[in-house]
Amino acid sequence: MSNNQQHIVSAYDRDLEAVQAMLMKMGGLVEASILDGAKALESRDVELAEKVRLGDKAIDALEEKINEETARCIALRAPVSTDLRVLLTVLRFTGSLERVGDYAKNMAKRTSVLAEMRPIQGTDAALRRMAREVQLMLKDVLDAYIQRDAMLAEDVRQRDHDVDQMYNAMFREFLTFMMEDPRNITACMHLHFIAKNIERMGDLVTNMAEQVIYLVSGTMPEEGRQKGDETSFMTAED
Amino acid sequence: MSNNQQHIVSAYDRDLEAVQAMLMKMGGLVEASILDGAKALESRDVELAEKVRLGDKAIDALEEKINEETARCIALRAPVSTDLRVLLTVLRFTGSLERVGDYAKNMAKRTSVLAEMRPIQGTDAALRRMAREVQLMLKDVLDAYIQRDAMLAEDVRQRDHDVDQMYNAMFREFLTFMMEDPRNITACMHLHFIAKNIERMGDLVTNMAEQVIYLVSGTMPEEGRQKGDETSFMTAED
Repeated sequence: MSNNQQHIVSAYDRDLEAVQAMLMKMGGLVEASILDGAKALESRDVELAEKVRLGDKAIDALEEKINEETARCIALRAPVSTDLRVLLTVLRFTGSLERVGDYAKNMAKRTSVLAEMRPIQGTDAALRRMAREVQLMLKDVLDAYIQRDAMLAEDVRQRDHDVDQMYNAMFREFLTFMMEDPRNITACMHLHFIAKNIERMGDLVTNMAEQVIYLVSGTMPEEGRQKGDETSFMTAED
Repeated sequence: MSNNQQHIVSAYDRDLEAVQAMLMKMGGLVEASILDGAKALESRDVELAEKVRLGDKAIDALEEKINEETARCIALRAPVSTDLRVLLTVLRFTGSLERVGDYAKNMAKRTSVLAEMRPIQGTDAALRRMAREVQLMLKDVLDAYIQRDAMLAEDVRQRDHDVDQMYNAMFREFLTFMMEDPRNITACMHLHFIAKNIERMGDLVTNMAEQVIYLVSGTMPEEGRQKGDETSFMTAED
């Protein structure tokens, strides 16, 4: 390898390291938003919810910065093969993380309106468990990306099934609560939204896991995973 | 310009043209899915709904193909500046289109369960109007991209406000229907989901419009657009 090439390679590595450090920071902020959003909801803590809402701006700003740096790196270093694939994965990850952050913000936004309504028994704790599960999946998928660990990514992908099951169970519960007492309807509509958004967060994290598998193995995982949201076909009588 | 450079330039142009042709095809398939999905729903046409569901596979396959071709073009031609930005926009567009297609598929999936329930007066036509509006926005944003027309993209962005207003009105209606008669609850939950998904399609198309503006002008549009979904704060008493 000529000195010149060596120079180019390490410049790419340095750029990649900087981009990945920002990506991990973004991931950390999104993880915190998920946990804080769910905590704010459970304790009807309007202040914490406001913090989550405002925090989303920092996440969006970071997304823009990472995208710019990544595009700059592609333009400047003209990477090919795996190096390029790594950078294109970064761009997909920021898009997914931004959306997960948006869902967390939305969960926080609904806290103030739900604070005015009577609680629906058991649902807040169930939502927090779901959110916690998704946050752990996100943490692991970021680790899997950094370690290029396809096994861990596959594990994340499988765990999304649990999140889907939690969601399906809650959908049924919400229908029941609403039918029992129409005064539950408005609160259940909001809570159901939150449940669905957490389920969607899980889907986004699962997409990220599939990207890691693709990055490591060069092929997308087979359709081994069952589609989890069964509620498209569900009625209260099920 | 040397002959060699000219050769490189036109090879890039040829690649870009091929990628964009596939992108337009993908956009056309997604537009058809939106319209057919809404039509299937309104007429409770389970066969047409099934066609939409199956059609989503072609959309996904096209997304993968476009992404591969785009990555190949970046690796091979090492474009910089605007050329690179155009290709990175293609990658964002395929991601958004794939999601819009997914929402259309989901609308179709709910047709069979809704076919078993009594209709909720007026909502199917309202959903079809919303879907039609989003399909027109998508058509225009694809035109705006090809023509590099920032004005048209800005117009699309503004029209998302109408879609949001339609959604807000429907949310209120669904709450009322559910409170009037608990037998409406299950159907309204499904219909509300569909309405929210159409509203989300509008958001994705709006993101695409912002990408076009960024591509043409080099800056993201100001926050001039109001956030349209007000239902995070909404109760039936509003």
